[in-house]
Amino acid sequence: MKGSKDLKNIKIAYIGGGSRGWAWQLMRDLATEKEIAGQVALYDIDFEAAKHNEAIGNELKKREDVVGKWDYKAYETIDGALTGADFVVISIMPGTFEEMASDVHLPEEYGIYQSVGDTAGPGGIVRALRTIPMMFEIAEAIQAYSPNAWVINYTNPMSLCVKALYTKFPEIKAFGCCHEVFGTASFLCEMLKDMEGIDGVKRQDLTYNVIGINHFTFFDKASYNGVDLFPMYDKFVDKYYDTGFFDEASKTNWMNNTFSCAHRVKFDLFKRYGSIAAAGDRHLAEFCYGKEYLKDPETVKAWKFGLTTVDWRKKDLKERLEKSRKYLSGEEQIDVTPSGEEGVLQMKALLGLGNFVTNVNIINRGQVPQLPLGSIVETNAYFSADEVRPVLCSDIPSELLALFSRHIYNHESIMKSALTGDLNHAFRAFLNDPLVTLDVKTAKELFDRMIHNTKKYLTMYQIG
Amino acid sequence: MKGSKDLKNIKIAYIGGGSRGWAWQLMRDLATEKEIAGQVALYDIDFEAAKHNEAIGNELKKREDVVGKWDYKAYETIDGALTGADFVVISIMPGTFEEMASDVHLPEEYGIYQSVGDTAGPGGIVRALRTIPMMFEIAEAIQAYSPNAWVINYTNPMSLCVKALYTKFPEIKAFGCCHEVFGTASFLCEMLKDMEGIDGVKRQDLTYNVIGINHFTFFDKASYNGVDLFPMYDKFVDKYYDTGFFDEASKTNWMNNTFSCAHRVKFDLFKRYGSIAAAGDRHLAEFCYGKEYLKDPETVKAWKFGLTTVDWRKKDLKERLEKSRKYLSGEEQIDVTPSGEEGVLQMKALLGLGNFVTNVNIINRGQVPQLPLGSIVETNAYFSADEVRPVLCSDIPSELLALFSRHIYNHESIMKSALTGDLNHAFRAFLNDPLVTLDVKTAKELFDRMIHNTKKYLTMYQIG
Amino acid sequence: MKGSKDLKNIKIAYIGGGSRGWAWQLMRDLATEKEIAGQVALYDIDFEAAKHNEAIGNELKKREDVVGKWDYKAYETIDGALTGADFVVISIMPGTFEEMASDVHLPEEYGIYQSVGDTAGPGGIVRALRTIPMMFEIAEAIQAYSPNAWVINYTNPMSLCVKALYTKFPEIKAFGCCHEVFGTASFLCEMLKDMEGIDGVKRQDLTYNVIGINHFTFFDKASYNGVDLFPMYDKFVDKYYDTGFFDEASKTNWMNNTFSCAHRVKFDLFKRYGSIAAAGDRHLAEFCYGKEYLKDPETVKAWKFGLTTVDWRKKDLKERLEKSRKYLSGEEQIDVTPSGEEGVLQMKALLGLGNFVTNVNIINRGQVPQLPLGSIVETNAYFSADEVRPVLCSDIPSELLALFSRHIYNHESIMKSALTGDLNHAFRAFLNDPLVTLDVKTAKELFDRMIHNTKKYLTMYQIG
Amino acid sequence: MKGSKDLKNIKIAYIGGGSRGWAWQLMRDLATEKEIAGQVALYDIDFEAAKHNEAIGNELKKREDVVGKWDYKAYETIDGALTGADFVVISIMPGTFEEMASDVHLPEEYGIYQSVGDTAGPGGIVRALRTIPMMFEIAEAIQAYSPNAWVINYTNPMSLCVKALYTKFPEIKAFGCCHEVFGTASFLCEMLKDMEGIDGVKRQDLTYNVIGINHFTFFDKASYNGVDLFPMYDKFVDKYYDTGFFDEASKTNWMNNTFSCAHRVKFDLFKRYGSIAAAGDRHLAEFCYGKEYLKDPETVKAWKFGLTTVDWRKKDLKERLEKSRKYLSGEEQIDVTPSGEEGVLQMKALLGLGNFVTNVNIINRGQVPQLPLGSIVETNAYFSADEVRPVLCSDIPSELLALFSRHIYNHESIMKSALTGDLNHAFRAFLNDPLVTLDVKTAKELFDRMIHNTKKYLTMYQIG
Repeated sequence: MKGSKDLKNIKIAYIGGGSRGWAWQLMRDLATEKEIAGQVALYDIDFEAAKHNEAIGNELKKREDVVGKWDYKAYETIDGALTGADFVVISIMPGTFEEMASDVHLPEEYGIYQSVGDTAGPGGIVRALRTIPMMFEIAEAIQAYSPNAWVINYTNPMSLCVKALYTKFPEIKAFGCCHEVFGTASFLCEMLKDMEGIDGVKRQDLTYNVIGINHFTFFDKASYNGVDLFPMYDKFVDKYYDTGFFDEASKTNWMNNTFSCAHRVKFDLFKRYGSIAAAGDRHLAEFCYGKEYLKDPETVKAWKFGLTTVDWRKKDLKERLEKSRKYLSGEEQIDVTPSGEEGVLQMKALLGLGNFVTNVNIINRGQVPQLPLGSIVETNAYFSADEVRPVLCSDIPSELLALFSRHIYNHESIMKSALTGDLNHAFRAFLNDPLVTLDVKTAKELFDRMIHNTKKYLTMYQIG
Repeated sequence: MKGSKDLKNIKIAYIGGGSRGWAWQLMRDLATEKEIAGQVALYDIDFEAAKHNEAIGNELKKREDVVGKWDYKAYETIDGALTGADFVVISIMPGTFEEMASDVHLPEEYGIYQSVGDTAGPGGIVRALRTIPMMFEIAEAIQAYSPNAWVINYTNPMSLCVKALYTKFPEIKAFGCCHEVFGTASFLCEMLKDMEGIDGVKRQDLTYNVIGINHFTFFDKASYNGVDLFPMYDKFVDKYYDTGFFDEASKTNWMNNTFSCAHRVKFDLFKRYGSIAAAGDRHLAEFCYGKEYLKDPETVKAWKFGLTTVDWRKKDLKERLEKSRKYLSGEEQIDVTPSGEEGVLQMKALLGLGNFVTNVNIINRGQVPQLPLGSIVETNAYFSADEVRPVLCSDIPSELLALFSRHIYNHESIMKSALTGDLNHAFRAFLNDPLVTLDVKTAKELFDRMIHNTKKYLTMYQIG
Repeated sequence: MKGSKDLKNIKIAYIGGGSRGWAWQLMRDLATEKEIAGQVALYDIDFEAAKHNEAIGNELKKREDVVGKWDYKAYETIDGALTGADFVVISIMPGTFEEMASDVHLPEEYGIYQSVGDTAGPGGIVRALRTIPMMFEIAEAIQAYSPNAWVINYTNPMSLCVKALYTKFPEIKAFGCCHEVFGTASFLCEMLKDMEGIDGVKRQDLTYNVIGINHFTFFDKASYNGVDLFPMYDKFVDKYYDTGFFDEASKTNWMNNTFSCAHRVKFDLFKRYGSIAAAGDRHLAEFCYGKEYLKDPETVKAWKFGLTTVDWRKKDLKERLEKSRKYLSGEEQIDVTPSGEEGVLQMKALLGLGNFVTNVNIINRGQVPQLPLGSIVETNAYFSADEVRPVLCSDIPSELLALFSRHIYNHESIMKSALTGDLNHAFRAFLNDPLVTLDVKTAKELFDRMIHNTKKYLTMYQIG
Repeated sequence: MKGSKDLKNIKIAYIGGGSRGWAWQLMRDLATEKEIAGQVALYDIDFEAAKHNEAIGNELKKREDVVGKWDYKAYETIDGALTGADFVVISIMPGTFEEMASDVHLPEEYGIYQSVGDTAGPGGIVRALRTIPMMFEIAEAIQAYSPNAWVINYTNPMSLCVKALYTKFPEIKAFGCCHEVFGTASFLCEMLKDMEGIDGVKRQDLTYNVIGINHFTFFDKASYNGVDLFPMYDKFVDKYYDTGFFDEASKTNWMNNTFSCAHRVKFDLFKRYGSIAAAGDRHLAEFCYGKEYLKDPETVKAWKFGLTTVDWRKKDLKERLEKSRKYLSGEEQIDVTPSGEEGVLQMKALLGLGNFVTNVNIINRGQVPQLPLGSIVETNAYFSADEVRPVLCSDIPSELLALFSRHIYNHESIMKSALTGDLNHAFRAFLNDPLVTLDVKTAKELFDRMIHNTKKYLTMYQIG
């Protein structure tokens, strides 16, 4: 039929294509994909890393257990990767662990603890200042070389990355994906087992409505087979409020597991607001008053979640580099069971292969009429051929709006700094962040030191 | 599981339950329904008619070819019908054919022809004035007796009926359904056959985005298997612009068929605005400049659609009364193949039995951010357990907004008359209607005569 | 001329007409008023107090130095006072000092200090819960007896009082007045003298744009004779940041003066946000993070403002009662120089006697498009015959929006409690208040105790 | 005082400075101005014309009866004129009378009569297409050379000119001025005399609220000394509905006077909508249904207003050129009584010399929350030092919104053509214009011919 895309000739450009995390997840999912095929164009400022992934990826199609046959190709320039792309995936590391160590740990000298440090809080704000200029560049390249491609961002800070893409190229067809919500949906499945003995339910079997901003999302509705899950969750919270609930992944040894938690922060937020917070506790905590869940390491321990240190990240990367070496040498093979991520499903829906509803981060064009237009919100959206249409969330409780808007206005202030080069706006956002419980002079000192530590990436700004 | 509804014990209240049209469609669809069962509570100001439908409906469950076993029960009071209802269906005839004859035909004395006369135009406006007070009453009854029920309206004028429900009871869970859009989707399936030889495609196989107001809806996107249907439609319009395209239903003898058309108005609107109008031509024409498609009967004939006269309606009713008699006597049996309507599917989705996206008329809480909040718009919406969430339409072309807003502001003016009793506002809407091409004095004379003819139903208003 | 009001026959209804503060200010201003005259109708639940003011007021017109001849009359019922009123002034004391002592001082047991306790913070929230039902009653009476009157509210919490009036009677012509902004404007006049030696400038000579919410207002523009005052203020802040600036009123002995301050909070907010905070420091502090300016009494002392205790209020009232006695007995006479308040000027503008621009608290119908419609904002407004039209503030910095919105969403939550009777919403607002730095259990305990202490006035709510 | 502007050294850049109309009005008003002085920088694509005005202007300061001493200087380049400007006045003629003749008179071949042809209707639309690119260029020059200047536009089509300025340079400080509203205010003064015998009232003595779009503005409130003028206007309309009312200017011989009218259109609009239309009838008529006031020349005559022909404009220009010659030669002197325009008053207010409220055309940032943000609306605004703040109009009747929005959406479509070069959008606006009562094919023919006639100025567009 005229107008049909050649589904066996799809091009996916991967910005940050040297990644040893998200890139391999994509490889897994493409390897099991029967309906579409084509090329994955890998671009990375570390070209060698992209070449390694090219080799790892191309190895896959030789395997008999792999049904999805894709070519992987590393490109030395971004225009090469983007030209002709149907999809662009962005998953970059803005700066090095050196900058990240400053983001996450320098505030500790001032009594500010961060469990992740890449979204909100002092670390998230400074990371954003560093990342936005990179996103501006990528948006300009997309506008020049693949303006009609659909763009999927995985980079953090999610909200400001997506906002940066839209700010520089307003017609971009971009959205941001994050699996934190899926984790909470799966957690509700575990609740079904624990509370009602219903086993085997998958997150896709639930219906839930997502509201909020990335890493600080909530369900205001959740049901299974038409049954409202809120009354059950209420009892579940009562049952486990003090002890926490160890889900399958965490049970063995939550303290060693940087990403796991006992959901006590989630339970506490339910006690407070009556909605189900839908992200890992270490993310949720960073959006709340700094003397609550993140007061100090002992408090964090009592709330039973973990502080993700940069040392851990370094160790983790080392392991992933080792894994990369093994993949390349053939000592180890990539696992080709589905990753649980939805990127490929989304691409297929956009190609006309199966409409569905899932949650995404996207510019607010009215889907949350109670929050400012142009902000980046996370809600459900309906994916269909060449369209992502958010569903309307017009009834968010004012108590949650108060929480969301504080960060959304901070996003605006940070973006204003990126657009004008004047760091004052970002500093005001810094002062308004709930983790920053410092007087103005001390806050300025911390801010300035953090800026200094990442200034190599801040050439767009006026720095005193 | 706790919190589950008893799916075999659903209560559907049917306001206007003596209907010999929509009520029978519902019976058909319930008769084929396997997952839910319960009672249909019939309420009608013509109690005898409701009793007849009670008998007709109860006959069904005795039939072997009927899988859906429902009890039908006529109620003498609306509170009886509503109490305990999970769903309320509203499908009433506001006034008699006497009033309708005035709505539709009196304007002809002034050179104003209306193809339907129940939505916009002089007839639609006066009908609205008569209907809104009835809807106010129904909304109050729902608030009192079944405030948590989902309410489906089929009555015209659709937009103002739904607006009336929300105006009187803002927390109502109501939406309006209309099959005009489905007709156009099916028409696109016929196009696929005509232009590409692709046979057997059903409207559910297409993806389309609906924008606008009831009976004046458009597709701004339509695709089949990921292929954009707009380029094909463009050629299709060129091919049949002059002759029109006779679809299956109309082919035999369109001129005798009041509801069929050759889609020439639809084609002309595509030439004008580049979007696919998605309703029957006789509806579309009424929203446009009065000297265009509805200038006089000859013009209507040239555009190849029909004027639905009230005489035809009387004759049609007579036939349906005869059919009712036969159903009652057993001479004839209700057809139990699916009707093509979606009401039962929607109810099931609201009970948690299958999420899906379809188009509905609902209050604008932001789904069309370019049109006034509180207006009634028709868009796609995502149906899931106890939720109808419109999808966002933030990119309607300004040319269509100009067309829609004219009528939407008229709705506001008419509603203002209903709320204040002051008919001046409705008269100003009358003057602003595109069919009313009269000077102010003549317009006032026509308006006053029309009001006079329906004044029995206008006790809420100050009439000179 | 037909349609003219009889300017010598104006009726002002005063709800709370037994007041020994605002009522006497009004008497002063009316006493000097030449263009309008008429009756002041005093209504108070303490009828005797109203009778006293009747006597005090009527004494005035006998005096030779009084040009404004007004009749004062105490009414036993609100309908008597309201009927025929052109203006309604609302200045009530919601509850007694007993409830206020709980509002202001009980939180101190939990380490929460409040400098006023009648606007935001735990005290403001609980006071609002008590006051809203009273405002609902007043709004209903106005709707019934004087729907066309202009209504001026002076009662705190201002925002929620005005919101309550509009919520109950949406067509009310109401606004709220507060002199805090005037104080800051006068303070800028003192700056002109201190920094530039310019003497004799009055606040009316300045032009300034007001943004924000009552008691937490800012100037984003201020000029004198076309000269932008911001650069001067910047230097002024630097000069006095550490010491504070003692204005004329405060100089003598600020520590004994409950209402005065050294503007250090104001200066600190300028350092933070670059805008000029425009209220007394004791009000401003209550809208900010609780561990900043109000951490403990020592901190308050260091910031050089005062905690207004209820004991002080009791003492102050005693003095005013004594003054009332003297006025009645003739031992003392009311001062008839202008009070500095603008109420009478506003009334005159609304009667067509002199258009002007001043700041008011009014429902947001779009004047601050960045904040929710329906919230109560304080901005400039243009007063003319029978009209108060806010001027547009479309460019508020995101950093301030973050501050304002937090409280505005709290107002929504508190109002939701008043409308539904469910105190959960108010408790969530309580948790979201920046002064409440408690964990959820402790916060609940404090909230419950505070509610208990005022429960006599909370019959509209479900109390556990 | 630091920060003060040198009020004797103001620079006004005049784009279109060779004008023989508006430029001389400005000269008149500056000649009587005592508080400010400086240079008027004349820029015109007809440099010689600017030189003439330089000479005429400089002659003024030699005169003893002239108190305002200004230097006039013609610049050959726009950057010279703009650099250092405090104010920019834009008053240009887009194209020549040749193009205007096509705009105004070609549609007559198709039965479409236009009384002005420079705002709405076929002529206004095509003129807009020609003018927007010029405004884009001017906006870019302002952004480059005088980004902080206040910009006053007098060019038509006003709304689209102002929209173009904001579209190209969103931070521009621009507004549009038009005297049509003043004319209607003066007309109300004549009513006061006619109906009540009150003589000597000036328009500045009235208070009125302006709503709408340029040349199609209304008063929804008007008062004199606090007396509502609507009841009087109602009687006035009844008195003169049939005959019309000849105001002072028109009385002698309205038919010979192109700009005068008997206000019958205005009266008819009052009968229809209950608001006072506030522009000359020849403008108002162009916004209404084409077969009403502008059906044909006889109809126009019956409504007692005039069709401004391009022949008349040519003759008028000839007279003005002759006048220019006389000014230059000294045969005649410019009249230095105030012109009645407000430009100089506005400039002074922006310099801090007298705040006041008047009506302007400006981007909708929320002042009319019921109309789209970003549209250009005409409302009252408060002028003060370096600020123009619109007053809020949140209560426009839906009947008027229907009229305004039709044209506002047309503006959006036309602007879309200017931004994309695709004339389809403008053609859709053309079809939606109330004067265009043609079928789609005929409309296309007319549109294409009109485009052809002005194509020399349409290099930005794709023309078939």
